[in-house]
Amino acid sequence: MNALLAQILADCAHYTSQGHVATYIPELANVDPGKFGIHVTLPNGENYGTGDDQDRFTMQSVVKPMILLLALMDSGITAVRDLVGVEATGKPFDAFNYSDQALTGAHINPMINTGAIALCTLIHGNTYEERFDRLLNLTRKLAGNPNLEVDQSVYRSEKLTGNKNRALAYMLTAYGMISDPVEKILDCYFKACSILINCRELSRIAYIFANHGLFPDTGERFFPAEYAKYVTATMATCGMYDGSGEFALTVGFPAKSGVGGGIMGVIPRRMGVAVFAPSLDKHGNSVAGVQALSQLSQALDLSIY
Amino acid sequence: MNALLAQILADCAHYTSQGHVATYIPELANVDPGKFGIHVTLPNGENYGTGDDQDRFTMQSVVKPMILLLALMDSGITAVRDLVGVEATGKPFDAFNYSDQALTGAHINPMINTGAIALCTLIHGNTYEERFDRLLNLTRKLAGNPNLEVDQSVYRSEKLTGNKNRALAYMLTAYGMISDPVEKILDCYFKACSILINCRELSRIAYIFANHGLFPDTGERFFPAEYAKYVTATMATCGMYDGSGEFALTVGFPAKSGVGGGIMGVIPRRMGVAVFAPSLDKHGNSVAGVQALSQLSQALDLSIY
Amino acid sequence: MNALLAQILADCAHYTSQGHVATYIPELANVDPGKFGIHVTLPNGENYGTGDDQDRFTMQSVVKPMILLLALMDSGITAVRDLVGVEATGKPFDAFNYSDQALTGAHINPMINTGAIALCTLIHGNTYEERFDRLLNLTRKLAGNPNLEVDQSVYRSEKLTGNKNRALAYMLTAYGMISDPVEKILDCYFKACSILINCRELSRIAYIFANHGLFPDTGERFFPAEYAKYVTATMATCGMYDGSGEFALTVGFPAKSGVGGGIMGVIPRRMGVAVFAPSLDKHGNSVAGVQALSQLSQALDLSIY
Amino acid sequence: MNALLAQILADCAHYTSQGHVATYIPELANVDPGKFGIHVTLPNGENYGTGDDQDRFTMQSVVKPMILLLALMDSGITAVRDLVGVEATGKPFDAFNYSDQALTGAHINPMINTGAIALCTLIHGNTYEERFDRLLNLTRKLAGNPNLEVDQSVYRSEKLTGNKNRALAYMLTAYGMISDPVEKILDCYFKACSILINCRELSRIAYIFANHGLFPDTGERFFPAEYAKYVTATMATCGMYDGSGEFALTVGFPAKSGVGGGIMGVIPRRMGVAVFAPSLDKHGNSVAGVQALSQLSQALDLSIY
Repeated sequence: MNALLAQILADCAHYTSQGHVATYIPELANVDPGKFGIHVTLPNGENYGTGDDQDRFTMQSVVKPMILLLALMDSGITAVRDLVGVEATGKPFDAFNYSDQALTGAHINPMINTGAIALCTLIHGNTYEERFDRLLNLTRKLAGNPNLEVDQSVYRSEKLTGNKNRALAYMLTAYGMISDPVEKILDCYFKACSILINCRELSRIAYIFANHGLFPDTGERFFPAEYAKYVTATMATCGMYDGSGEFALTVGFPAKSGVGGGIMGVIPRRMGVAVFAPSLDKHGNSVAGVQALSQLSQALDLSIY
Repeated sequence: MNALLAQILADCAHYTSQGHVATYIPELANVDPGKFGIHVTLPNGENYGTGDDQDRFTMQSVVKPMILLLALMDSGITAVRDLVGVEATGKPFDAFNYSDQALTGAHINPMINTGAIALCTLIHGNTYEERFDRLLNLTRKLAGNPNLEVDQSVYRSEKLTGNKNRALAYMLTAYGMISDPVEKILDCYFKACSILINCRELSRIAYIFANHGLFPDTGERFFPAEYAKYVTATMATCGMYDGSGEFALTVGFPAKSGVGGGIMGVIPRRMGVAVFAPSLDKHGNSVAGVQALSQLSQALDLSIY
Repeated sequence: MNALLAQILADCAHYTSQGHVATYIPELANVDPGKFGIHVTLPNGENYGTGDDQDRFTMQSVVKPMILLLALMDSGITAVRDLVGVEATGKPFDAFNYSDQALTGAHINPMINTGAIALCTLIHGNTYEERFDRLLNLTRKLAGNPNLEVDQSVYRSEKLTGNKNRALAYMLTAYGMISDPVEKILDCYFKACSILINCRELSRIAYIFANHGLFPDTGERFFPAEYAKYVTATMATCGMYDGSGEFALTVGFPAKSGVGGGIMGVIPRRMGVAVFAPSLDKHGNSVAGVQALSQLSQALDLSIY
Repeated sequence: MNALLAQILADCAHYTSQGHVATYIPELANVDPGKFGIHVTLPNGENYGTGDDQDRFTMQSVVKPMILLLALMDSGITAVRDLVGVEATGKPFDAFNYSDQALTGAHINPMINTGAIALCTLIHGNTYEERFDRLLNLTRKLAGNPNLEVDQSVYRSEKLTGNKNRALAYMLTAYGMISDPVEKILDCYFKACSILINCRELSRIAYIFANHGLFPDTGERFFPAEYAKYVTATMATCGMYDGSGEFALTVGFPAKSGVGGGIMGVIPRRMGVAVFAPSLDKHGNSVAGVQALSQLSQALDLSIY
């Protein structure tokens, strides 16, 4: 496995010079586009990694599966499903004219910003600080690292410049889908996006989803299998933005990408994998990361289709 | 003229029971749907009104022509046109996915909330309080009433519940179209929507647009004719929301409606008219108001087409 | 007037080198982009023209007002309005998924292909050849030239390549808005688009609309004034494609353009005008033609706003 | 397995009275909504069925995987992928205005009518009759029944009323995506939709996809494994129309539904399944069929996530 991962990194290294690092927040633009790491977690806690797989990056959208999971654990499937839809086919939404259509749950998805913001309201906690702390703790347990922290400068940068997310959150408010103060919810969401992680930890998280909620080392059940399937299925249909269909063809397992350059991949019942390479394609997915996962999938026959 | 207006009110009174008063802010829902007034202003300050034409109502979107006018007076045609487009054909806009299209001026219009909010940033003033005061003063002068005031409870209600407008304003911010603090801009906008006016005053404003910037009584020029044409032309193509095309056919002159139930109609070079009847059709236009303007247009051959 | 028109042509001649001639059918691409003509028709048949105002070009979308007029004359306002809407704000329409929204009259407009195609079915005639002959005769009478003919090579070219129009026509069929054979209807429509006209004749047509249905020479009524207003009002809100709002600002009277390079302008109660210059802007409107109309409007204060 | 299938049919029978049979072609409306059958195919050709699993119904959209497969076998992955996209997130497409966006492969998908129509042009054959014959033969071989035939009255009915598909095909033509005569292509497509099949045969087809191209009985390879994965992956993200995301959650394996009431489900490496129950939900999927597959998936832990 070590040899295979090394080979994949060597073969795909030239892809790190394609695409562009995210620039919509200044802090993300400073990352070194040459970084490239991969890590896999197998049953019994066996794991292998190479390259920059210990380098930390902010989770960004890779945290969406964690938000969905905690919303499921705290509020249950019915409440989650009632608030946020699961289709990738949501039609454009407009609010220019008096008579424009209403925004409903059917228009949103847990793997898209609007859906993830809405789901923060289904995480339990007396305050949004408490809700975030519970989300951070969940992520720490899944990652197997009690010291995961928020990148404060990225968090402040997101908070300062995250006006598209503010727009989405106020739209949710306007249509009665959320009712808590927008800035409180967004503060939780921005912090979540700014959690620092590395490939080793992220592949462990992916493994736990692949293992349907059981910890890799102890075998202890951390959450019900049906929550794992809920999260994984939405990753399969919508986890790679407008590149989800292409990814299903060329890689073939559920995955979630983030504009920080990370991707977590879940191979149900078999494996968790994570890659990190900051340069993104037009869909917002790591160029070299997608290539590496594709090569890994071919080599180990990981497609679930 | 008095007889004609009385006849129109009698003929159209039964339309006041059709449609629904606006309910999106609680204060607007309390208005009496049976209210119905009309007022016309003719050259030399001659004017006629009947029914509830002295009853006050909040301007709501009827204030948009005033915002556009003051932006033109303060910043000029080029700055206004660069920031805010003039087509009614703006395509739906979406911000769900990473790769979604950017919002540009071509998508917005001065007669639609997004455009009016953006135009508040082109009104001069050291603070948004000062900008609003200048807008209120402009409206007072146009209306010929130095005592126009804001309905404080409607204003507070709009501020409290205006989350769709917050969403739009943050979207404008996210795409770099505005840069001042959203809440400051919206405070100015919400106050503007809450200015109390009556049909007599509103028809005077309409007359000044029809008279291309000259006051009806003194004949003094208040603003350039080309600004009047700018405002009036955008009212003609987009002033009645998704009912603008229908209104051009059945009434045939530029007009702007508001969800407070008011409509101002501009018959260039001839007349200003205002109606008030709070019950709205599906487009957000006063049902009885549109009917009254249609009958007036037929009776006096007011169509500009 | 002769001096003014000559001045306008001289001032705007350099615009003929901007934009691009239509290329979607090969025959249109062969036109000389340097052609430039203008003609105005005034009361009592007085008329003035200069440049290439006797050159013939195909009407293309400039025939849409004639289709609408004949549909009104044959089937009346109610039937026309029931079939085809009048808003410029029609939302994008999709037919990809089983559950997609139905296409309705509210989505279409007489000044847009879909609406014009639908209106061909409201023209009377036992066959579509007969319907087209009646449309040609109407156009001949309006133009004051009994010899107007179809450009056969453009017609054949449109028929061969007009698959977007076929798509639109089958969509209308699928939603029950039309029921006659699509190729018959389109044959009528393609022939109509291929009628050859010149600026002198087109300005006479525009004048008759401006004169509310009365012939310029005899003063005889050819059609009711309300039909003239119906046609003119839809031209004002939607006659210049996605440039209709801009045209209302900068020129200020109802007009209809065609991709053949012609534009007819209607100044109600005052004047008809036509320009011809084949090079088009991104909206499909003649670049030099719009400039010439703008200068004419300024010089003679023709804005209706 | 027999007992399980019988139990599922009994449990889900009441769902056959929910929803509505397809009515867009008269022939489909005549089907008995009480019909309900299920059949599974396992390794080594083992198979079990119950209820109306021998009743024939027209494939409708269930034939799309076969069209995609034959296009892949005849023209290869690159040609298929270049012509037809694989995302479920295609934005609405419009063709109303001169300046509207171009239709591209990125807007379409093999599991949606537009994509399937386009893919007919990648099936080999000197004529479209020959192409269809090759598609029918492929389907016969997959189904294990050399006598599969077209329902002539459904085929004629589709041909007569399939104007939405005509519209889509002409749109593809207009944008240069297909160039053969539309009626020829559609004739092939309409015949394909009208092939009569039963659940036993359809589950055998599903099994061959699940078995990555190997026949269940002989173990002989019929097509490459990567084609099976291509087809199955597109079914997973887009096979159940706007209900694909929901189906991934509640059932959890790739499937394709048709408005004839059939659904084929592919459980990779394990099983093929087919259900038939004509009454459809709002997405166009069999109501009782989806319920039966959900129950089967729970009972046998068939989710791939």
